[in-house]
Amino acid sequence: MGLDTDFKKIPKLLLHTDYPVFEFNKRIIDATQEFAVAYKPNLAFYETLGAAGYMSLEMTVSYIRKTYPDLFIIADAKRGDIGNTSRMYAHAFFKTLDFDAITLSPYMGKDSISPFLETKGKWTILLALTSNEGSEDFQQLPLEDGHKLFEQVITTSSKWGTVNNIMYVVGATKAEALARIRELIPEHFLLVPGVGSQGGSLQEVAKYGMNDRCGLLVNASRSIIYADVTNKFQEAARQEASNLQAQMEELLKNRELL
Amino acid sequence: MGLDTDFKKIPKLLLHTDYPVFEFNKRIIDATQEFAVAYKPNLAFYETLGAAGYMSLEMTVSYIRKTYPDLFIIADAKRGDIGNTSRMYAHAFFKTLDFDAITLSPYMGKDSISPFLETKGKWTILLALTSNEGSEDFQQLPLEDGHKLFEQVITTSSKWGTVNNIMYVVGATKAEALARIRELIPEHFLLVPGVGSQGGSLQEVAKYGMNDRCGLLVNASRSIIYADVTNKFQEAARQEASNLQAQMEELLKNRELL
Repeated sequence: MGLDTDFKKIPKLLLHTDYPVFEFNKRIIDATQEFAVAYKPNLAFYETLGAAGYMSLEMTVSYIRKTYPDLFIIADAKRGDIGNTSRMYAHAFFKTLDFDAITLSPYMGKDSISPFLETKGKWTILLALTSNEGSEDFQQLPLEDGHKLFEQVITTSSKWGTVNNIMYVVGATKAEALARIRELIPEHFLLVPGVGSQGGSLQEVAKYGMNDRCGLLVNASRSIIYADVTNKFQEAARQEASNLQAQMEELLKNRELL
Repeated sequence: MGLDTDFKKIPKLLLHTDYPVFEFNKRIIDATQEFAVAYKPNLAFYETLGAAGYMSLEMTVSYIRKTYPDLFIIADAKRGDIGNTSRMYAHAFFKTLDFDAITLSPYMGKDSISPFLETKGKWTILLALTSNEGSEDFQQLPLEDGHKLFEQVITTSSKWGTVNNIMYVVGATKAEALARIRELIPEHFLLVPGVGSQGGSLQEVAKYGMNDRCGLLVNASRSIIYADVTNKFQEAARQEASNLQAQMEELLKNRELL
């Protein structure tokens, strides 16, 4: 579940608290954790509030870690810099903040990713083929050898780590490309955003992307956390999360994985 | 000048202050501003300290803006996400923090960059060809039409804005590629990191990259801010900055731009 918590969309009853974004997250997490395997704060929504937003982020990660220790926590940060700087980012997300995983952009190559892979027990989630219109601009460009750039990103980068420390972002709106991606990396886990508000279909994602250990982390954000903006936001979020979980359970049963 | 301020390298006399990273930056800026046109905080070095680091960043930007209003301030952040999220990042860097410019990664395409270009009076600095080893992994891949990926990134993205709101990052260690880049974009400003500690040559950068309005923002970080780690760090930084400025002045005079 994506915690793209927009200060402007938080129910008014929370606005009197010191850290409204954290208070909202805490209530959403309490209401939905039974149906979620992971939470994914989107860094932009915290940075836009400055140091106060950063505090809400720290409190959110710490709350999940202490209250629900089995849940997986992903920093949706899309970082990537030269090695020296990426070491600092790895420290920021894996030590200062105790995230389990971070999304990274592959454009700067191996030394921008390695510092994250070197931290034991943590995961790197590389952008491969994203759900937005702009994915056509560069990700889908054909290379000299006939492959598309996102295919080369997957092929090259999958050698930098293992199926136990690298995942890939593949947008739910690109469901058919999942079949091609599964030929390249049958075993890796995929983080699939874009189900819900962005219009991706869970059935299509499962059809083309599921492997024999599921292999999918399907993300929904706005469709759950803003299901209702009144005092009943927790119940509404819980209902949406429950619905999505039930659909996923059905799909897993169909493939005899549950 | 890059403010890649590593908490571990700050002179001990500043460690008793509430915000040592800010105190260090303030002293470095005071000592060097006479020789600099821009400061470039590297976000990783602030994020690694959590909310306290973010406070130091806010204080640094605010100090430059108030004390030296003619200086240009660049967020070296290398962000990039779907449009909805990029709007939040644009707010974070151009409104919450009053940066003049931000570095961005092109991998996610046009809608990940547009929200930044839509903010009047602000600049987007897109990664094109970076100074690190990993730039070979994807940036230099040949495409079907014979161009390299970084060339296509430049050609495509230069149409999204103008020479007055887009610049490109080209590493100083790739000086010869600057000649090719100048064929594609003769007028754009280039942000050139990698002079100094990373081994790039200012003479080579000027030879291949300078245009008739200079067109270069040459960055040095570690070679200046850590020139000395004793109580004399300000004088040493001032001397290094002065040396680099003198070399740049010489190069501008040679081209009759000064």
